[in-house]
Amino acid sequence: MAHRGGRHFLQIPGPTNVPDRILRAMDRPTIDHRGPEFQKLGQEVLEGIKPIFGTTQPVIIYPASGTGAWEAAIVNTLTPGDKVLMFETGHFATLWRTLAQKFGIETEFVPGDWRHGVDAGVVEAKLREDRDHAIKAVMVVHNETSTGVTSRVPLVRQAIDRAGHPALLLVDTISSLGSIDYRHDEWGVDVTVAGSQKGLMLPPGLSFNAVSEKAMAASRDNRMPRSYWDWQDMLKPNQNGFFPYTPATNLLYGLREAVAMLMEEGMTNVFARHDRHAEATRRAVRAWGLEILCAEPAEYSSALTAVMVPNGHNADELRRVILDRFDMSLGAGLAKLAGKVFRIGHLGDFNDLSLAGTLAGVEMGLSVAGIPHRSGGLDAAMRYLEGNGGEVKKAAE
Amino acid sequence: MAHRGGRHFLQIPGPTNVPDRILRAMDRPTIDHRGPEFQKLGQEVLEGIKPIFGTTQPVIIYPASGTGAWEAAIVNTLTPGDKVLMFETGHFATLWRTLAQKFGIETEFVPGDWRHGVDAGVVEAKLREDRDHAIKAVMVVHNETSTGVTSRVPLVRQAIDRAGHPALLLVDTISSLGSIDYRHDEWGVDVTVAGSQKGLMLPPGLSFNAVSEKAMAASRDNRMPRSYWDWQDMLKPNQNGFFPYTPATNLLYGLREAVAMLMEEGMTNVFARHDRHAEATRRAVRAWGLEILCAEPAEYSSALTAVMVPNGHNADELRRVILDRFDMSLGAGLAKLAGKVFRIGHLGDFNDLSLAGTLAGVEMGLSVAGIPHRSGGLDAAMRYLEGNGGEVKKAAE
Amino acid sequence: MAHRGGRHFLQIPGPTNVPDRILRAMDRPTIDHRGPEFQKLGQEVLEGIKPIFGTTQPVIIYPASGTGAWEAAIVNTLTPGDKVLMFETGHFATLWRTLAQKFGIETEFVPGDWRHGVDAGVVEAKLREDRDHAIKAVMVVHNETSTGVTSRVPLVRQAIDRAGHPALLLVDTISSLGSIDYRHDEWGVDVTVAGSQKGLMLPPGLSFNAVSEKAMAASRDNRMPRSYWDWQDMLKPNQNGFFPYTPATNLLYGLREAVAMLMEEGMTNVFARHDRHAEATRRAVRAWGLEILCAEPAEYSSALTAVMVPNGHNADELRRVILDRFDMSLGAGLAKLAGKVFRIGHLGDFNDLSLAGTLAGVEMGLSVAGIPHRSGGLDAAMRYLEGNGGEVKKAAE
Amino acid sequence: MAHRGGRHFLQIPGPTNVPDRILRAMDRPTIDHRGPEFQKLGQEVLEGIKPIFGTTQPVIIYPASGTGAWEAAIVNTLTPGDKVLMFETGHFATLWRTLAQKFGIETEFVPGDWRHGVDAGVVEAKLREDRDHAIKAVMVVHNETSTGVTSRVPLVRQAIDRAGHPALLLVDTISSLGSIDYRHDEWGVDVTVAGSQKGLMLPPGLSFNAVSEKAMAASRDNRMPRSYWDWQDMLKPNQNGFFPYTPATNLLYGLREAVAMLMEEGMTNVFARHDRHAEATRRAVRAWGLEILCAEPAEYSSALTAVMVPNGHNADELRRVILDRFDMSLGAGLAKLAGKVFRIGHLGDFNDLSLAGTLAGVEMGLSVAGIPHRSGGLDAAMRYLEGNGGEVKKAAE
Repeated sequence: MAHRGGRHFLQIPGPTNVPDRILRAMDRPTIDHRGPEFQKLGQEVLEGIKPIFGTTQPVIIYPASGTGAWEAAIVNTLTPGDKVLMFETGHFATLWRTLAQKFGIETEFVPGDWRHGVDAGVVEAKLREDRDHAIKAVMVVHNETSTGVTSRVPLVRQAIDRAGHPALLLVDTISSLGSIDYRHDEWGVDVTVAGSQKGLMLPPGLSFNAVSEKAMAASRDNRMPRSYWDWQDMLKPNQNGFFPYTPATNLLYGLREAVAMLMEEGMTNVFARHDRHAEATRRAVRAWGLEILCAEPAEYSSALTAVMVPNGHNADELRRVILDRFDMSLGAGLAKLAGKVFRIGHLGDFNDLSLAGTLAGVEMGLSVAGIPHRSGGLDAAMRYLEGNGGEVKKAAE
Repeated sequence: MAHRGGRHFLQIPGPTNVPDRILRAMDRPTIDHRGPEFQKLGQEVLEGIKPIFGTTQPVIIYPASGTGAWEAAIVNTLTPGDKVLMFETGHFATLWRTLAQKFGIETEFVPGDWRHGVDAGVVEAKLREDRDHAIKAVMVVHNETSTGVTSRVPLVRQAIDRAGHPALLLVDTISSLGSIDYRHDEWGVDVTVAGSQKGLMLPPGLSFNAVSEKAMAASRDNRMPRSYWDWQDMLKPNQNGFFPYTPATNLLYGLREAVAMLMEEGMTNVFARHDRHAEATRRAVRAWGLEILCAEPAEYSSALTAVMVPNGHNADELRRVILDRFDMSLGAGLAKLAGKVFRIGHLGDFNDLSLAGTLAGVEMGLSVAGIPHRSGGLDAAMRYLEGNGGEVKKAAE
Repeated sequence: MAHRGGRHFLQIPGPTNVPDRILRAMDRPTIDHRGPEFQKLGQEVLEGIKPIFGTTQPVIIYPASGTGAWEAAIVNTLTPGDKVLMFETGHFATLWRTLAQKFGIETEFVPGDWRHGVDAGVVEAKLREDRDHAIKAVMVVHNETSTGVTSRVPLVRQAIDRAGHPALLLVDTISSLGSIDYRHDEWGVDVTVAGSQKGLMLPPGLSFNAVSEKAMAASRDNRMPRSYWDWQDMLKPNQNGFFPYTPATNLLYGLREAVAMLMEEGMTNVFARHDRHAEATRRAVRAWGLEILCAEPAEYSSALTAVMVPNGHNADELRRVILDRFDMSLGAGLAKLAGKVFRIGHLGDFNDLSLAGTLAGVEMGLSVAGIPHRSGGLDAAMRYLEGNGGEVKKAAE
Repeated sequence: MAHRGGRHFLQIPGPTNVPDRILRAMDRPTIDHRGPEFQKLGQEVLEGIKPIFGTTQPVIIYPASGTGAWEAAIVNTLTPGDKVLMFETGHFATLWRTLAQKFGIETEFVPGDWRHGVDAGVVEAKLREDRDHAIKAVMVVHNETSTGVTSRVPLVRQAIDRAGHPALLLVDTISSLGSIDYRHDEWGVDVTVAGSQKGLMLPPGLSFNAVSEKAMAASRDNRMPRSYWDWQDMLKPNQNGFFPYTPATNLLYGLREAVAMLMEEGMTNVFARHDRHAEATRRAVRAWGLEILCAEPAEYSSALTAVMVPNGHNADELRRVILDRFDMSLGAGLAKLAGKVFRIGHLGDFNDLSLAGTLAGVEMGLSVAGIPHRSGGLDAAMRYLEGNGGEVKKAAE
């Protein structure tokens, strides 16, 4: 592409802007994946990634996209014919369900309006009904990348516990890990699915399964055919920092740097930064007079905000104008939201002035595209940001 | 690791030395995988990779290690209970068989001594016996990374044809693609499995399936559960340069550069360069008085040479000495060859002087480690290289 | 420095934000500066840089900062005791004068208020007075980096011509080249001084002298002792793409890429982009109710805007707040402007959204630092940017 | 240049192979050279570079080639008409003398045969003759890059002291610093001149003056016109980590990394490594039956070896063959040595196997070019390297 002056604003909700430190860390020769230098790298990343999941249990690292880690969570714990409880919170929840069905899983899919998260009351009710424990897993998307709606995982956990049901809890954190507070161990999650290209600030190509004791035990007995995704095959060499097949070494260099950066900033600060930018974004949206897709404030996403365009207007046309005129990529509305919403990613390696540039691009784009709105959105965001050194109370907690 | 002066010699048979041009190509911001700039990239790599396989048919690109592409070849074309014909040519053939077994495939595994390639006569005989066509696929490793023995794929094809058998031909070219002459279409291969980290000179993290019409048809009818590896899901978005899930964008930047580099040099020259370096290496080994593991000259690998150490000596101790004293990584003997052979990788981004450095490291290492040998190995290699502008007749062709 | 999330905004008026393409172009092995590959590089950059100066005459490239190129312009054309006419347009004009004095040059330094450019009427008057042509050179800073005031070089040229005076015209374009329209040949400039780290988007370390026939002739007769800066020593090897001493090869890699990028965008577009961002910035400043240091609209700089803070307030304290809270570097007031102005760089690799982020940082910083101002500055800039596809009429032309 | 497979061998005696760690360290955004982050960098490099010179006194860092640092040493300490004592040890000593002459320095240039270093006896005799101390400086090249001959600086110091002469001692270490043992303070050197692109493993573009108290005092009184090179202007801002004009920030990033790497390896080990590789090279040259240019073993260079080709043969033709066939750059014979010698650089980031590759390229090149020689050179080098863990006794110490 011919140069046009200045840096592209990549404000889709992932892949996110990869910081120079991480690109540089990856830009070095690949090493022998069976040698002592690799071993040190392997041990560092396998150990270093754990606090980011809020776990002291094993985290499996795959050379694969997040979709692969979805598949891994299923093929390690479930068998064709098993029943699971899932929730139609948006496009990615729907895709995960489709994936499960391909492996012969029977999915009870609680319908949703794509504007709300998982209803913990429904979880409890469904599990109470399931007296013979046919349901083997409750599968939840923590942060719906297609809608900017989060589901409150602790409430889901409590619902399961209240129902006294043995189902595993599988949670997709692909677009929340490293951006929104998450606690694999404390919240009693059995499998956490994640990817590299969002809050971890890496290019795509790595994905993760954090695995509880209970899930690990289930995998030992599980007869679903599998090889690439098999946890057991991973665990043994991982104990020494190695992998059963050639790992994506250069992405692991990047992961080591990403972990270092997140630890330098501190996870609490990282989460507060995301909360603050999300709140500033919502204030801009409201000032524009546009509607936030997420209908429940306690479920607002700190990683992205999906914004509805007024009836009769096309969000994709707006996105095209913004890309052409202002060199910024925004997320499209997906599936049944196509053309109706655009999504602002405000996650990953991001700061106040980049957010201001992002909101300026949206505000000017709305004008250029002729979408009815009030000005003053960025103003509202700035007033919030300037008055706020970083403390944000988040409803969900 | 603390600096010790000079560049590490990574002479394992993969991952290979990644050229600066490729590292630099990858060292740039990730882009929107749904936008127009990505589309151009996607179209370029999906088209550009084809001549390297010698095909005009689709090549599927996975964000995964080569092991994933092994699995993909199986789950797309075979069903639990299917029978396949495989050959014990070495460690990787054995691993591929194990993988197939995990998916319920019945593997007829013709025993071998790890010093010879596939015997085409046996292929023909076995297929002729199989009158009711229970064998669904013949699965062959083109270049056994564990032994430095190649199998002559055209002879296998002819054997299948002579037997008039409809079995698919699946070939692993993980350590040969881009290094040793290979022709997916001309040789009538149905699925070619490959990876990024060998002849393609990339870091690990991408793998490939080149797919014939016949294999594609088989996949349409195949009921083996699959999702991540599913060819059909890939093909549709691929037609426009896109992928069904987030691709490993930065590795694709590298792939575009790798394709450009191979085209600049010309595949014929690339193969001749590898043949020449392999011949120089074998002359060194013979001058040292050591034995080449590969027993059949027509099956010598141009990607690596496995060398046997005399009885009573340990190849791993030699490798340790060479790593410590000369900062070079060599390949270990695997499985039943552990301690008995070491493997010299001479593939990928490589030239005469790097080969000389490599052979010097081996020759000095043999002395330091006290392994009986004659000197003069590097001398023999130099005499060959200096007298030879590049023409090499290869027995196998 | 510990990671704090997001990308630093480097909005000093140079060094500017180095684009990734340039950093990557520099990130490769140094080559033999006497070999054929270097020769090609040398020829490309020596030829490619010329259109950026608007010249077909030689451009000398030094491995040095811009200060070195200032010195080079003097030691090649002037001799101790020579008289020159200079103008106190700001801090850098003053420094250049001091440098000239160190080499024994007698400088007539026309006083100024640091808010105006060179008065062409004064040039003409002074030269008319100088009947015996004691004045050997008129030395002008095109864009005063310390004030954001440009001098209109064509008017200076016309003044010299009207006076019929043979003085050389030396022009410093360190902070204008590649950002503000400039024409070495058309405007009859004899020596143009430039540096790498502003409009050329490179790191610091290269500087330039574009040299007219007349200046070259003067240098041949000039007896000022010199070696490193000597044009004659450079010219001969330059004809073949080489240099008389080891050049800064990796910066030349970057220069090749910078030239390519400017040519891709087109110099007319580059200048229009800078004009437009400068106008947007001034609209923001006026909306804030602050005063632009440059007093004459025809002399507004398109590279930077210096803004006065109200009496009783400290611009450095504002800058400190902005750096701490919003991770943006702005330029300080220099010398007699210390504490009184801050300077916003809007040059180099820059676009609308980065400008919006920059202005947001200033606007929020003014609030946090408690500097009296009206809000709405960024709003005014956005209204201008969104209504304007790129056409800007510039008063100076 | 089109890809040809493998990594270029850059075996000129500088610029040397820049390690990836240094290229990567430089590949990051330029920062504000007046801000706190730069200050830390400035302090680190200004302090960190001192032990590499063996000094606790100031080291001045210029954004310039080594030639600039030659000029700086002169213009800070000498005045037109001053007399200096220099020695024709080779091409660079001759160039430095020419440079001095351009600044009006009267150079007594003791003739030499380009095969020997400075004769300390001559130093003493010349200084004893100079009863009225007209000689202001003794100027010596530590390692003659054109010949591979070192001069023993401690002996020169002793000669000056024995003569009781107050002359300054200026030493060029451009191709020795960081490769050959050197001690600015202990050896009583007044100005040490150095560059970035040799033992410091950086790209060209930085150069250095280490300055004694006595030289600093001389500079305070010295009236030679100067500005860019002026030590006094540098010293004040340097105290806080800053520079009087824009420094070459990205090269300073590289310098910080280079210092770290040299400290990790340890200077004693760095010198021993160079000594060892030089000895191995000489053994190869002798085994080939070729003559080493340096006539005095106590003066052998550990940075490079200049090799004479037999009469009637052309070293440049040999170099061309080696570049074309083996992708290796060697140093040319310069000035009166043109065509008669080639120079093997074995300095900087280098190890045993790279040396073996280098010597293989020379040995094969000799054959291809038809230059009479015996084989066995690389063999001799390998026997030395394999038997030698690193201890080398060097005659000069």
